[in-house]
Amino acid sequence: MTPAKGKLYLVPAPLDFACDKLAPLRHVLPQATLDIAARLQHWICENAKSARAYLVRVRELQPLALPIQALDIQELPHQVHKKGDHQVDFDARPLLGPALRGQDIGLVSEAGMPAVADPGSSVVCAAHDLGVTVVPLVGPSSLLLALAASGLSGQNFAFVGYLPAQTAQRTQRIRELESLALQTGQTQLFIETPYRNEAMLQSLLEVLDAQTRLAVAGGLTLEDALLRSDKVAGWKSRRTSLDKNMPVVFAIGR
Amino acid sequence: MTPAKGKLYLVPAPLDFACDKLAPLRHVLPQATLDIAARLQHWICENAKSARAYLVRVRELQPLALPIQALDIQELPHQVHKKGDHQVDFDARPLLGPALRGQDIGLVSEAGMPAVADPGSSVVCAAHDLGVTVVPLVGPSSLLLALAASGLSGQNFAFVGYLPAQTAQRTQRIRELESLALQTGQTQLFIETPYRNEAMLQSLLEVLDAQTRLAVAGGLTLEDALLRSDKVAGWKSRRTSLDKNMPVVFAIGR
Repeated sequence: MTPAKGKLYLVPAPLDFACDKLAPLRHVLPQATLDIAARLQHWICENAKSARAYLVRVRELQPLALPIQALDIQELPHQVHKKGDHQVDFDARPLLGPALRGQDIGLVSEAGMPAVADPGSSVVCAAHDLGVTVVPLVGPSSLLLALAASGLSGQNFAFVGYLPAQTAQRTQRIRELESLALQTGQTQLFIETPYRNEAMLQSLLEVLDAQTRLAVAGGLTLEDALLRSDKVAGWKSRRTSLDKNMPVVFAIGR
Repeated sequence: MTPAKGKLYLVPAPLDFACDKLAPLRHVLPQATLDIAARLQHWICENAKSARAYLVRVRELQPLALPIQALDIQELPHQVHKKGDHQVDFDARPLLGPALRGQDIGLVSEAGMPAVADPGSSVVCAAHDLGVTVVPLVGPSSLLLALAASGLSGQNFAFVGYLPAQTAQRTQRIRELESLALQTGQTQLFIETPYRNEAMLQSLLEVLDAQTRLAVAGGLTLEDALLRSDKVAGWKSRRTSLDKNMPVVFAIGR
Protein backbone atom coordinates (compact mmCIF):
# COMPACT_ATOMS: atom_id res chain seq x y z
CA MET A 1 0.00 0.00 0.00
CA THR A 2 1.29 3.50 -0.82
CA PRO A 3 1.61 5.64 2.31
CA ALA A 4 -0.34 8.93 2.38
CA LYS A 5 1.74 11.78 1.00
CA GLY A 6 3.04 14.53 3.24
CA LYS A 7 1.97 18.14 2.69
CA LEU A 8 3.93 21.17 1.57
CA TYR A 9 3.39 24.01 4.04
CA LEU A 10 4.22 27.55 2.91
CA VAL A 11 5.61 29.08 6.10
CA PRO A 12 5.84 32.87 6.25
CA ALA A 13 8.81 34.44 8.04
CA PRO A 14 8.93 37.82 9.83
CA LEU A 15 9.91 40.90 7.81
CA ASP A 16 12.88 41.84 9.98
CA PHE A 17 15.53 39.93 8.01
CA ALA A 18 18.87 41.74 8.35
CA CYS A 19 17.27 44.45 10.50
CA ASP A 20 18.78 45.80 13.72
CA LYS A 21 15.63 45.21 15.72
CA LEU A 22 13.52 42.09 15.52
CA ALA A 23 9.73 41.90 15.58
CA PRO A 24 8.43 39.55 18.29
CA LEU A 25 7.23 36.48 16.35
CA ARG A 26 3.85 36.55 18.11
CA HIS A 27 3.24 40.01 16.66
CA VAL A 28 3.42 38.77 13.11
CA LEU A 29 2.62 35.05 13.11
CA PRO A 30 -0.60 33.35 14.23
CA GLN A 31 -0.31 30.50 16.72
CA ALA A 32 -1.14 27.91 14.05
CA THR A 33 1.80 29.04 11.90
CA LEU A 34 4.16 28.77 14.89
CA ASP A 35 2.76 25.33 15.82
CA ILE A 36 3.32 23.94 12.34
CA ALA A 37 6.78 25.51 11.96
CA ALA A 38 7.78 23.91 15.28
CA ARG A 39 6.78 20.41 14.26
CA LEU A 40 8.17 20.22 10.70
CA GLN A 41 11.29 18.10 10.25
CA HIS A 42 11.92 18.75 6.55
CA TRP A 43 12.51 22.18 5.07
CA ILE A 44 13.16 23.73 1.66
CA CYS A 45 14.51 27.24 1.98
CA GLU A 46 16.05 30.22 0.26
CA ASN A 47 19.01 30.17 2.68
CA ALA A 48 19.75 27.48 5.27
CA LYS A 49 21.42 29.83 7.74
CA SER A 50 18.40 32.18 7.78
CA ALA A 51 16.02 29.23 8.06
CA ARG A 52 17.92 27.98 11.13
CA ALA A 53 17.92 31.48 12.65
CA TYR A 54 14.15 31.62 12.18
CA LEU A 55 13.69 28.23 13.83
CA VAL A 56 15.83 29.35 16.79
CA ARG A 57 13.30 32.15 17.29
CA VAL A 58 10.38 29.70 17.03
CA ARG A 59 12.11 27.47 19.61
CA GLU A 60 12.16 30.36 22.09
CA LEU A 61 8.36 30.15 22.09
CA GLN A 62 7.79 26.41 21.88
CA PRO A 63 9.79 23.18 21.58
CA LEU A 64 10.77 21.95 18.13
CA ALA A 65 10.13 18.35 17.04
CA LEU A 66 13.88 17.78 16.56
CA PRO A 67 17.10 19.60 17.48
CA ILE A 68 17.87 22.14 14.75
CA GLN A 69 21.03 20.32 13.63
CA ALA A 70 18.95 17.16 13.12
CA LEU A 71 16.45 18.87 10.76
CA ASP A 72 16.60 18.11 7.05
CA ILE A 73 17.13 21.53 5.42
CA GLN A 74 17.54 21.81 1.64
CA GLU A 75 18.44 25.06 -0.10
CA LEU A 76 17.05 26.20 -3.43
CA PRO A 77 19.87 26.51 -5.98
CA HIS A 78 21.50 29.90 -6.44
CA GLN A 79 20.26 30.26 -10.03
CA VAL A 80 16.65 30.19 -8.76
CA HIS A 81 17.32 33.00 -6.27
CA LYS A 82 19.08 35.07 -8.82
CA LYS A 83 16.85 34.75 -11.86
CA GLY A 84 13.50 33.69 -10.41
CA ASP A 85 11.80 30.30 -10.44
CA HIS A 86 10.05 30.88 -13.73
CA GLN A 87 13.10 32.15 -15.62
CA VAL A 88 15.28 29.09 -15.20
CA ASP A 89 14.78 25.51 -16.20
CA PHE A 90 14.75 24.08 -12.68
CA ASP A 91 13.04 20.85 -11.73
CA ALA A 92 12.08 21.12 -8.05
CA ARG A 93 10.51 17.66 -7.86
CA PRO A 94 13.55 15.93 -6.29
CA LEU A 95 13.32 18.34 -3.33
CA LEU A 96 9.88 16.93 -2.55
CA GLY A 97 11.10 13.39 -1.87
CA PRO A 98 10.18 13.51 1.84
CA ALA A 99 6.55 14.38 0.97
CA LEU A 100 6.34 11.38 -1.36
CA ARG A 101 7.52 9.27 1.59
CA GLY A 102 4.75 10.65 3.82
CA GLN A 103 6.64 13.49 5.56
CA ASP A 104 5.41 17.07 5.71
CA ILE A 105 7.75 19.76 4.34
CA GLY A 106 8.01 23.48 5.08
CA LEU A 107 8.93 26.02 2.41
CA VAL A 108 10.39 29.22 3.83
CA SER A 109 12.13 32.29 2.44
CA GLU A 110 14.24 34.88 4.24
CA ALA A 111 11.34 37.25 4.87
CA GLY A 112 7.60 37.22 4.27
CA MET A 113 5.59 34.76 2.25
CA PRO A 114 7.58 32.20 0.23
CA ALA A 115 6.91 32.30 -3.52
CA VAL A 116 5.63 35.89 -3.41
CA ALA A 117 8.34 38.38 -4.45
CA ASP A 118 10.68 35.62 -3.34
CA PRO A 119 11.84 32.22 -4.58
CA GLY A 120 9.74 29.11 -4.16
CA SER A 121 7.05 28.97 -6.84
CA SER A 122 8.91 26.19 -8.68
CA VAL A 123 8.60 24.06 -5.53
CA VAL A 124 4.88 24.81 -5.23
CA CYS A 125 4.37 24.03 -8.89
CA ALA A 126 6.24 20.73 -8.52
CA ALA A 127 4.04 19.86 -5.51
CA HIS A 128 0.91 20.32 -7.63
CA ASP A 129 2.40 18.17 -10.37
CA LEU A 130 3.22 15.40 -7.88
CA GLY A 131 -0.17 15.52 -6.15
CA VAL A 132 1.32 16.87 -2.92
CA THR A 133 -1.20 19.04 -1.04
CA VAL A 134 -0.06 22.65 -0.67
CA VAL A 135 -1.08 24.53 2.49
CA PRO A 136 -0.28 28.25 2.66
CA LEU A 137 -0.05 29.54 6.25
CA VAL A 138 -0.87 33.05 7.39
CA GLY A 139 1.89 35.55 8.06
CA PRO A 140 3.28 38.87 6.95
CA SER A 141 3.94 39.95 3.37
CA SER A 142 5.71 43.25 2.77
CA LEU A 143 3.94 43.71 -0.58
CA LEU A 144 0.47 43.16 0.78
CA LEU A 145 1.00 45.38 3.83
CA ALA A 146 2.53 48.10 1.65
CA LEU A 147 -0.38 47.96 -0.79
CA ALA A 148 -3.05 48.09 1.94
CA ALA A 149 -1.26 50.97 3.66
CA SER A 150 -0.59 52.92 0.46
CA GLY A 151 -4.07 54.37 0.02
CA LEU A 152 -3.78 53.41 -3.65
CA SER A 153 -6.29 51.09 -5.29
CA GLY A 154 -6.12 47.54 -3.99
CA GLN A 155 -8.89 46.47 -6.35
CA ASN A 156 -6.61 46.53 -9.39
CA PHE A 157 -2.86 46.28 -8.87
CA ALA A 158 0.32 44.72 -10.17
CA PHE A 159 3.70 43.84 -8.71
CA VAL A 160 6.42 44.05 -11.36
CA GLY A 161 9.58 43.18 -9.40
CA TYR A 162 12.72 45.21 -10.07
CA LEU A 163 13.04 48.04 -12.59
CA PRO A 164 16.11 48.25 -14.88
CA ALA A 165 19.21 49.64 -13.14
CA GLN A 166 20.45 51.57 -16.19
CA THR A 167 19.15 55.17 -16.15
CA ALA A 168 17.66 55.54 -19.62
CA GLN A 169 15.92 52.17 -19.44
CA ARG A 170 14.70 52.88 -15.95
CA THR A 171 13.28 56.24 -16.95
CA GLN A 172 11.42 54.60 -19.80
CA ARG A 173 10.07 51.87 -17.52
CA ILE A 174 8.89 54.42 -14.94
CA ARG A 175 7.03 56.28 -17.70
CA GLU A 176 5.43 53.03 -18.85
CA LEU A 177 4.30 52.12 -15.33
CA GLU A 178 2.94 55.61 -14.66
CA SER A 179 1.02 55.56 -17.89
CA LEU A 180 -0.46 52.13 -17.03
CA ALA A 181 -1.37 53.31 -13.53
CA LEU A 182 -3.01 56.53 -14.70
CA GLN A 183 -4.78 55.11 -17.73
CA THR A 184 -6.08 51.84 -16.33
CA GLY A 185 -6.17 52.70 -12.60
CA GLN A 186 -3.91 49.71 -11.90
CA THR A 187 -1.60 50.47 -8.95
CA GLN A 188 1.97 49.50 -9.86
CA LEU A 189 4.23 48.10 -7.14
CA PHE A 190 7.95 47.44 -7.46
CA ILE A 191 11.07 46.99 -5.37
CA GLU A 192 14.73 48.00 -5.50
CA THR A 193 17.99 46.77 -4.00
CA PRO A 194 18.10 48.79 -0.74
CA TYR A 195 21.38 50.59 -1.44
CA ARG A 196 19.74 52.06 -4.54
CA ASN A 197 16.60 53.25 -2.69
CA GLU A 198 17.62 56.91 -2.80
CA ALA A 199 18.58 56.77 -6.47
CA MET A 200 15.21 55.16 -7.27
CA LEU A 201 13.31 57.82 -5.34
CA GLN A 202 15.30 60.51 -7.15
CA SER A 203 14.44 58.98 -10.55
CA LEU A 204 10.77 58.72 -9.62
CA LEU A 205 10.58 62.36 -8.55
CA GLU A 206 12.29 63.46 -11.74
CA VAL A 207 10.14 61.39 -14.08
CA LEU A 208 6.65 61.21 -12.55
CA ASP A 209 3.96 63.85 -12.99
CA ALA A 210 3.45 66.17 -10.00
CA GLN A 211 -0.11 64.87 -9.53
CA THR A 212 0.79 61.16 -9.55
CA ARG A 213 0.60 59.54 -6.12
CA LEU A 214 3.73 57.78 -4.87
CA ALA A 215 3.80 55.54 -1.80
CA VAL A 216 6.95 54.13 -0.18
CA ALA A 217 6.81 51.56 2.62
CA GLY A 218 9.55 49.75 4.48
CA GLY A 219 9.97 48.04 7.83
CA LEU A 220 6.22 47.51 8.20
CA THR A 221 5.52 45.45 11.35
CA LEU A 222 8.65 47.03 12.90
CA GLU A 223 8.79 49.95 15.30
CA ASP A 224 10.75 52.18 12.96
CA ALA A 225 8.48 51.58 9.97
CA LEU A 226 8.65 53.97 7.06
CA LEU A 227 5.35 54.73 5.35
CA ARG A 228 4.60 57.73 3.22
CA SER A 229 1.95 58.19 0.53
CA ASP A 230 1.74 61.55 -1.15
CA LYS A 231 1.51 63.21 -4.53
CA VAL A 232 4.84 63.67 -6.26
CA ALA A 233 4.52 67.43 -5.73
CA GLY A 234 4.32 66.80 -1.98
CA TRP A 235 7.39 64.54 -2.04
CA LYS A 236 9.30 67.24 -3.89
CA SER A 237 8.39 70.01 -1.46
CA ARG A 238 9.29 67.81 1.53
CA ARG A 239 11.79 65.03 0.88
CA THR A 240 11.90 61.87 2.98
CA SER A 241 15.27 60.15 2.89
CA LEU A 242 15.30 56.39 2.48
CA ASP A 243 17.51 54.08 4.52
CA LYS A 244 20.08 52.38 2.31
CA ASN A 245 19.73 49.12 4.24
CA MET A 246 15.95 48.88 4.47
CA PRO A 247 14.05 46.95 1.79
CA VAL A 248 11.18 49.14 0.67
CA VAL A 249 8.19 48.73 -1.62
CA PHE A 250 7.39 51.55 -4.07
CA ALA A 251 3.88 52.05 -5.41
CA ILE A 252 2.49 54.49 -7.92
CA GLY A 253 -1.13 55.19 -8.78
CA ARG A 254 -3.71 57.86 -9.11
CA MET B 1 -1.78 72.50 22.48
CA THR B 2 -3.03 70.12 19.81
CA PRO B 3 -3.39 66.57 21.16
CA ALA B 4 -1.40 63.83 19.37
CA LYS B 5 -3.43 62.27 16.58
CA GLY B 6 -4.76 58.73 16.84
CA LYS B 7 -3.65 56.06 14.37
CA LEU B 8 -5.56 54.21 11.68
CA TYR B 9 -5.05 50.46 12.11
CA LEU B 10 -5.83 48.19 9.16
CA VAL B 11 -7.29 45.14 10.90
CA PRO B 12 -7.50 41.93 8.86
CA ALA B 13 -10.50 39.65 9.37
CA PRO B 14 -10.63 35.85 8.94
CA LEU B 15 -11.54 34.45 5.52
CA ASP B 16 -14.57 32.48 6.71
CA PHE B 17 -17.17 35.19 6.10
CA ALA B 18 -20.52 33.55 5.25
CA CYS B 19 -18.93 30.07 5.53
CA ASP B 20 -20.52 27.14 7.36
CA LYS B 21 -17.43 26.46 9.43
CA LEU B 22 -15.35 29.15 11.09
CA ALA B 23 -11.56 29.24 11.36
CA PRO B 24 -10.35 29.64 14.95
CA LEU B 25 -9.13 33.26 15.12
CA ARG B 26 -5.79 32.18 16.61
CA HIS B 27 -5.14 30.12 13.48
CA VAL B 28 -5.22 33.17 11.25
CA LEU B 29 -4.45 36.23 13.38
CA PRO B 30 -1.27 36.97 15.36
CA GLN B 31 -1.65 37.92 19.01
CA ALA B 32 -0.76 41.57 18.29
CA THR B 33 -3.64 41.87 15.80
CA LEU B 34 -6.08 40.41 18.35
CA ASP B 35 -4.75 42.71 21.11
CA ILE B 36 -5.22 45.83 19.02
CA ALA B 37 -8.66 44.77 17.72
CA ALA B 38 -9.76 44.23 21.34
CA ARG B 39 -8.75 47.69 22.51
CA LEU B 40 -10.06 49.87 19.63
CA GLN B 41 -13.18 51.90 20.40
CA HIS B 42 -13.70 53.45 16.96
CA TRP B 43 -14.22 51.47 13.77
CA ILE B 44 -14.77 52.12 10.08
CA CYS B 45 -16.10 49.05 8.32
CA GLU B 46 -17.58 47.59 5.18
CA ASN B 47 -20.59 46.29 7.13
CA ALA B 48 -21.43 47.04 10.77
CA LYS B 49 -23.15 43.71 11.43
CA SER B 50 -20.12 41.75 10.21
CA ALA B 51 -17.76 44.00 12.17
CA ARG B 52 -19.74 43.30 15.36
CA ALA B 53 -19.76 39.56 14.64
CA TYR B 54 -15.97 39.68 14.25
CA LEU B 55 -15.60 41.53 17.56
CA VAL B 56 -17.80 38.95 19.29
CA ARG B 57 -15.25 36.35 18.19
CA VAL B 58 -12.36 38.48 19.43
CA ARG B 59 -14.17 38.87 22.80
CA GLU B 60 -14.27 35.09 23.18
CA LEU B 61 -10.47 35.24 23.40
CA GLN B 62 -9.92 38.44 25.37
CA PRO B 63 -11.93 41.28 26.91
CA LEU B 64 -12.83 44.26 24.73
CA ALA B 65 -12.21 47.84 25.89
CA LEU B 66 -15.94 48.60 25.72
CA PRO B 67 -19.17 46.60 25.36
CA ILE B 68 -19.85 46.06 21.64
CA GLN B 69 -22.99 48.22 21.68
CA ALA B 70 -20.92 51.09 23.08
CA LEU B 71 -18.35 51.02 20.24
CA ASP B 72 -18.40 53.73 17.62
CA ILE B 73 -18.85 51.84 14.32
CA GLN B 74 -19.17 53.76 11.04
CA GLU B 75 -20.00 52.06 7.74
CA LEU B 76 -18.50 52.98 4.38
CA PRO B 77 -21.26 54.19 2.03
CA HIS B 78 -22.85 51.67 -0.31
CA GLN B 79 -21.51 53.42 -3.44
CA VAL B 80 -17.94 52.71 -2.26
CA HIS B 81 -18.67 48.99 -1.81
CA LYS B 82 -20.33 48.72 -5.13
CA LYS B 83 -18.03 50.69 -7.40
CA GLY B 84 -14.72 50.72 -5.53
CA ASP B 85 -13.05 53.52 -3.60
CA HIS B 86 -11.23 54.89 -6.59
CA GLN B 87 -14.21 54.93 -8.93
CA VAL B 88 -16.44 57.24 -6.91
CA ASP B 89 -15.92 60.76 -5.69
CA PHE B 90 -15.97 59.95 -1.98
CA ASP B 91 -14.31 62.06 0.67
CA ALA B 92 -13.46 59.76 3.59
CA ARG B 93 -11.92 62.50 5.73
CA PRO B 94 -15.00 63.07 7.92
CA LEU B 95 -14.84 59.40 9.00
CA LEU B 96 -11.43 60.08 10.53
CA GLY B 97 -12.70 62.64 13.06
CA PRO B 98 -11.88 60.43 16.08
CA ALA B 99 -8.22 60.17 14.96
CA LEU B 100 -7.96 63.96 14.75
CA ARG B 101 -9.23 64.04 18.35
CA GLY B 102 -6.52 61.61 19.47
CA GLN B 103 -8.44 58.32 19.26
CA ASP B 104 -7.18 55.26 17.38
CA ILE B 105 -9.47 53.84 14.68
CA GLY B 106 -9.69 50.35 13.17
CA LEU B 107 -10.54 49.78 9.51
CA VAL B 108 -12.01 46.35 8.83
CA SER B 109 -13.69 44.62 5.91
CA GLU B 110 -15.83 41.48 5.86
CA ALA B 111 -12.93 39.15 5.12
CA GLY B 112 -9.19 39.48 4.73
CA MET B 113 -7.13 42.64 4.50
CA PRO B 114 -9.08 45.89 4.25
CA ALA B 115 -8.33 47.94 1.11
CA VAL B 116 -7.02 44.90 -0.80
CA ALA B 117 -9.67 43.45 -3.13
CA ASP B 118 -12.07 45.13 -0.71
CA PRO B 119 -13.23 48.64 0.16
CA GLY B 120 -11.15 50.94 2.33
CA SER B 121 -8.40 52.57 0.27
CA SER B 122 -10.23 55.91 0.26
CA VAL B 123 -10.02 55.88 4.07
CA VAL B 124 -6.30 55.06 3.99
CA CYS B 125 -5.69 57.78 1.44
CA ALA B 126 -7.61 60.31 3.57
CA ALA B 127 -5.50 59.31 6.59
CA HIS B 128 -2.31 60.09 4.67
CA ASP B 129 -3.74 63.43 3.57
CA LEU B 130 -4.64 64.31 7.17
CA GLY B 131 -1.30 63.20 8.62
CA VAL B 132 -2.87 60.27 10.48
CA THR B 133 -0.37 57.41 10.87
CA VAL B 134 -1.50 54.22 9.10
CA VAL B 135 -0.54 50.88 10.67
CA PRO B 136 -1.32 47.72 8.67
CA LEU B 137 -1.65 44.64 10.91
CA VAL B 138 -0.81 41.08 9.88
CA GLY B 139 -3.58 38.66 8.95
CA PRO B 140 -4.92 36.57 6.11
CA SER B 141 -5.47 37.71 2.54
CA SER B 142 -7.19 35.34 0.14
CA LEU B 143 -5.34 36.85 -2.84
CA LEU B 144 -1.91 36.49 -1.31
CA LEU B 145 -2.51 32.95 -0.07
CA ALA B 146 -3.95 31.94 -3.45
CA LEU B 147 -0.98 33.41 -5.30
CA ALA B 148 1.63 31.75 -3.06
CA ALA B 149 -0.19 28.42 -3.32
CA SER B 150 -0.76 28.61 -7.09
CA GLY B 151 2.74 27.64 -8.17
CA LEU B 152 2.54 30.51 -10.66
CA SER B 153 5.08 33.33 -10.65
CA GLY B 154 4.84 35.52 -7.55
CA GLN B 155 7.66 37.72 -8.83
CA ASN B 156 5.46 39.40 -11.43
CA PHE B 157 1.70 39.34 -10.96
CA ALA B 158 -1.47 41.39 -11.24
CA PHE B 159 -4.89 41.32 -9.62
CA VAL B 160 -7.53 42.66 -11.99
CA GLY B 161 -10.74 42.31 -9.96
CA TYR B 162 -13.86 41.05 -11.75
CA LEU B 163 -14.09 40.14 -15.43
CA PRO B 164 -17.08 41.27 -17.52
CA ALA B 165 -20.22 39.16 -16.96
CA GLN B 166 -21.35 39.29 -20.59
CA THR B 167 -20.04 36.29 -22.57
CA ALA B 168 -18.43 37.95 -25.59
CA GLN B 169 -16.74 40.61 -23.49
CA ARG B 170 -15.61 38.03 -20.97
CA THR B 171 -14.13 35.82 -23.67
CA GLN B 172 -12.21 38.78 -25.03
CA ARG B 173 -10.95 39.74 -21.57
CA ILE B 174 -9.81 36.15 -20.86
CA ARG B 175 -7.86 36.17 -24.14
CA GLU B 176 -6.26 39.49 -23.20
CA LEU B 177 -5.23 38.24 -19.77
CA GLU B 178 -3.86 34.97 -21.15
CA SER B 179 -1.87 36.82 -23.75
CA LEU B 180 -0.43 39.15 -21.06
CA ALA B 181 0.39 36.19 -18.81
CA LEU B 182 2.08 34.19 -21.56
CA GLN B 183 3.94 37.05 -23.21
CA THR B 184 5.16 38.95 -20.16
CA GLY B 185 5.17 36.13 -17.58
CA GLN B 186 2.86 38.22 -15.36
CA THR B 187 0.48 35.95 -13.42
CA GLN B 188 -3.08 37.28 -13.72
CA LEU B 189 -5.42 36.91 -10.74
CA PHE B 190 -9.13 37.67 -10.73
CA ILE B 191 -12.31 36.90 -8.83
CA GLU B 192 -15.95 36.17 -9.61
CA THR B 193 -19.26 36.35 -7.76
CA PRO B 194 -19.44 32.84 -6.21
CA TYR B 195 -22.69 31.79 -7.89
CA ARG B 196 -20.95 32.32 -11.24
CA ASN B 197 -17.87 30.25 -10.32
CA GLU B 198 -18.85 27.31 -12.50
CA ALA B 199 -19.70 29.51 -15.46
CA MET B 200 -16.34 31.26 -15.12
CA LEU B 201 -14.47 27.95 -15.00
CA GLN B 202 -16.38 26.79 -18.06
CA SER B 203 -15.44 29.94 -19.97
CA LEU B 204 -11.80 29.62 -18.96
CA LEU B 205 -11.61 26.00 -20.12
CA GLU B 206 -13.23 26.92 -23.42
CA VAL B 207 -11.03 29.92 -24.14
CA LEU B 208 -7.59 29.18 -22.69
CA ASP B 209 -4.86 27.24 -24.47
CA ALA B 210 -4.41 23.64 -23.31
CA GLN B 211 -0.86 24.41 -22.10
CA THR B 212 -1.79 27.49 -20.01
CA ARG B 213 -1.72 26.89 -16.27
CA LEU B 214 -4.90 27.66 -14.33
CA ALA B 215 -5.06 27.76 -10.54
CA VAL B 216 -8.26 28.03 -8.49
CA ALA B 217 -8.21 28.57 -4.73
CA GLY B 218 -11.03 29.04 -2.22
CA GLY B 219 -11.55 28.57 1.48
CA LEU B 220 -7.81 28.75 2.18
CA THR B 221 -7.22 28.67 5.98
CA LEU B 222 -10.38 26.51 6.28
CA GLU B 223 -10.55 22.75 6.57
CA ASP B 224 -12.44 22.27 3.34
CA ALA B 225 -10.08 24.41 1.29
CA LEU B 226 -10.15 24.09 -2.48
CA LEU B 227 -6.81 24.42 -4.23
CA ARG B 228 -5.97 23.13 -7.67
CA SER B 229 -3.26 24.25 -10.06
CA ASP B 230 -2.98 22.42 -13.36
CA LYS B 231 -2.63 22.98 -17.08
CA VAL B 232 -5.93 23.59 -18.85
CA ALA B 233 -5.57 20.19 -20.54
CA GLY B 234 -5.48 18.60 -17.06
CA TRP B 235 -8.57 20.52 -15.91
CA LYS B 236 -10.41 19.36 -19.04
CA SER B 237 -9.53 15.69 -18.57
CA ARG B 238 -10.53 15.81 -14.90
CA ARG B 239 -13.03 18.48 -13.93
CA THR B 240 -13.23 19.89 -10.40
CA SER B 241 -16.62 21.39 -9.59
CA LEU B 242 -16.67 24.72 -7.79
CA ASP B 243 -18.95 25.49 -4.87
CA LYS B 244 -21.49 28.17 -5.80
CA ASN B 245 -21.20 29.76 -2.35
CA MET B 246 -17.42 29.80 -1.93
CA PRO B 247 -15.48 32.90 -2.98
CA VAL B 248 -12.56 31.71 -5.08
CA VAL B 249 -9.51 33.32 -6.65
CA PHE B 250 -8.63 32.37 -10.23
CA ALA B 251 -5.06 32.69 -11.52
CA ILE B 252 -3.59 32.07 -14.95
CA GLY B 253 0.05 31.97 -15.96
CA ARG B 254 2.66 29.93 -17.71
